[in-house]
Amino acid sequence: MLRRRLSAAGADAMVVTHLPNIYYLSGFTGSSGALVVEHGRTTLFTDGRYAIQAPAQAAPAGTRVEITKGPLPTAVGAHLASRKRIRAVYDPARVTVAAQKTLEKAAGRAVRWRAEVGWTEALRAIKSPAEIAQMRKAARLGSQVFEQTVKVIRPGITEIDLAAEIEYRMRKLGAEGPSFETIVASGPRGALPHAHPTSKRLRRNELVVLDLGAILARYCCDLTRTVFLGRAPARVRRWYRAVSEARQAACEALAVGAKAGAPDAAARQVLVAYDLGRYFTHSTGHGLGLEVHEEPRLAAGQVREIEAGNVVTIEPGVYVEGVGGIRIEDDVAVHSKGIEVLTTAPLELLEL
Amino acid sequence: MLRRRLSAAGADAMVVTHLPNIYYLSGFTGSSGALVVEHGRTTLFTDGRYAIQAPAQAAPAGTRVEITKGPLPTAVGAHLASRKRIRAVYDPARVTVAAQKTLEKAAGRAVRWRAEVGWTEALRAIKSPAEIAQMRKAARLGSQVFEQTVKVIRPGITEIDLAAEIEYRMRKLGAEGPSFETIVASGPRGALPHAHPTSKRLRRNELVVLDLGAILARYCCDLTRTVFLGRAPARVRRWYRAVSEARQAACEALAVGAKAGAPDAAARQVLVAYDLGRYFTHSTGHGLGLEVHEEPRLAAGQVREIEAGNVVTIEPGVYVEGVGGIRIEDDVAVHSKGIEVLTTAPLELLEL
Repeated sequence: MLRRRLSAAGADAMVVTHLPNIYYLSGFTGSSGALVVEHGRTTLFTDGRYAIQAPAQAAPAGTRVEITKGPLPTAVGAHLASRKRIRAVYDPARVTVAAQKTLEKAAGRAVRWRAEVGWTEALRAIKSPAEIAQMRKAARLGSQVFEQTVKVIRPGITEIDLAAEIEYRMRKLGAEGPSFETIVASGPRGALPHAHPTSKRLRRNELVVLDLGAILARYCCDLTRTVFLGRAPARVRRWYRAVSEARQAACEALAVGAKAGAPDAAARQVLVAYDLGRYFTHSTGHGLGLEVHEEPRLAAGQVREIEAGNVVTIEPGVYVEGVGGIRIEDDVAVHSKGIEVLTTAPLELLEL
Repeated sequence: MLRRRLSAAGADAMVVTHLPNIYYLSGFTGSSGALVVEHGRTTLFTDGRYAIQAPAQAAPAGTRVEITKGPLPTAVGAHLASRKRIRAVYDPARVTVAAQKTLEKAAGRAVRWRAEVGWTEALRAIKSPAEIAQMRKAARLGSQVFEQTVKVIRPGITEIDLAAEIEYRMRKLGAEGPSFETIVASGPRGALPHAHPTSKRLRRNELVVLDLGAILARYCCDLTRTVFLGRAPARVRRWYRAVSEARQAACEALAVGAKAGAPDAAARQVLVAYDLGRYFTHSTGHGLGLEVHEEPRLAAGQVREIEAGNVVTIEPGVYVEGVGGIRIEDDVAVHSKGIEVLTTAPLELLEL
């Protein structure tokens, strides 16, 4: 697919610098590398730390490995300079000004450069059945973690300790680790959508937002549930119902051929009808895969079409300063015949 | 300090895009932001998710917050464009080609740009006494985690489960989480310096490399110890002694005014004398702080001078394909009157 795009663009080579893209194209999982895709060959550049690992991971898919000593852009440039008059593609959103300058200098006049954004990311946005199977496992693992964690949620435990319990269970269930810092936000702290866990203790009659992501075999899940410690008052029940209906509306708007902005519009419409629109301060969802945020974005005004193979989060929320937050987030795969909710944690308001 | 450099460079503003630098300069911990430092004011740009958090974190140090809707570079560019004919500094190593292009377009002709690498990183490399106190706590926490973990290391436990135990203890001791994916590499897998933990079970008569990093109050520690399951054979003891002496030699070469390449040369000399030089496939250490890799790098040929306030890792190792690896890593603060080893885990070969 990439080579077809290269041909269509009249280009001879593409330089890939973003690590998840390198993994996707070559299987290499190291923390430093650059990949050059040409019509006849693919070459991975990395350093001595990966002298054993890189060939073991990349060779099966036919990628040659070069272990370099100096900066990677210099080695990649020298590699390209050895060819005569070629056109090479790079991604300006994935390379720093300094690295691209070094690369262009090392490649010299032999190479004409062409900027193209997101070619590999576009491939990654369409998951294969094998990838969706993997993400289903990751989503179930995340859901299991939530269900196990519910049993240890009680007044008195600190946010940090609860986050520790969550991440420990991820690991014990086979995850490589969290895909982002686990969020445990209780009481008024829940009004911060991205609160870090603190030493604050959970108290009776508080909302608690739990947002957790696990990485399993390199694929991410991303799950949020909100629970109440005690019996929820009517106001909280109403908010929860609104968010729950917004989630449902977003799921119904998610279909092959729909605009990526449609689920966001649907969720927002529900919350506006509840007069809670101003409390929904972020977008409705994002693509999920090797990274916890990828294409497509489910945000207001996005006109890109949803495609079969997209896997996205649906995560409306309301955040009331001084009181707390409610967010419900699931991972959803889009198939040609309909959607599949991958996460399996209970959707009703749990009163603990 | 930054403003002094701005003045010396005849510049009016600096755009900071790297998140740890933004935290260092403003206290803001969000996942999206850009900071503009000018002579009379500092402005943080971020999005609606941080509408509550950003002013709470950044205002105490006098930073004004602007919540933006569109892309950050566009907002920053518009902010700069409102001033007449200024010179602005950006860091080409910390901004993508695409983001800088958007920024320059939005800023328009009013702004002349000047590329300067690593101004904030240079400040960060010199830790204040308060920062060193914080890193001492982080290093002790990492050491405690290791000492607690030793008790659960036994044949039969998987690498993944041992990593889970390590990360759980970090969290329980108050850390925000690991600063990198915990390494547990047993037997021949230890020959991969950056091995991810697998479902491989630990076996008798194997070396096990444990490399763990915890983040405490945003500062990282980074600690490696290698243990042997059973009674180590003479060959392994000799390797361990060599690495241990290399560590000692590197520490002795670490002093204010020494070249940053000196500890690496000292460690390498010891390993070469043991005829193990070819098994030491990475550099001796790196700066540590808000990030797990920062300035200064302790690598061959580095001529930069070590300064009081530097905090670095010292981590020589040997990696023998098919057999295993040994690495010993400590965190060391450089003071004007000598070094201070911050990590407190035992240095002798533990035979478990």
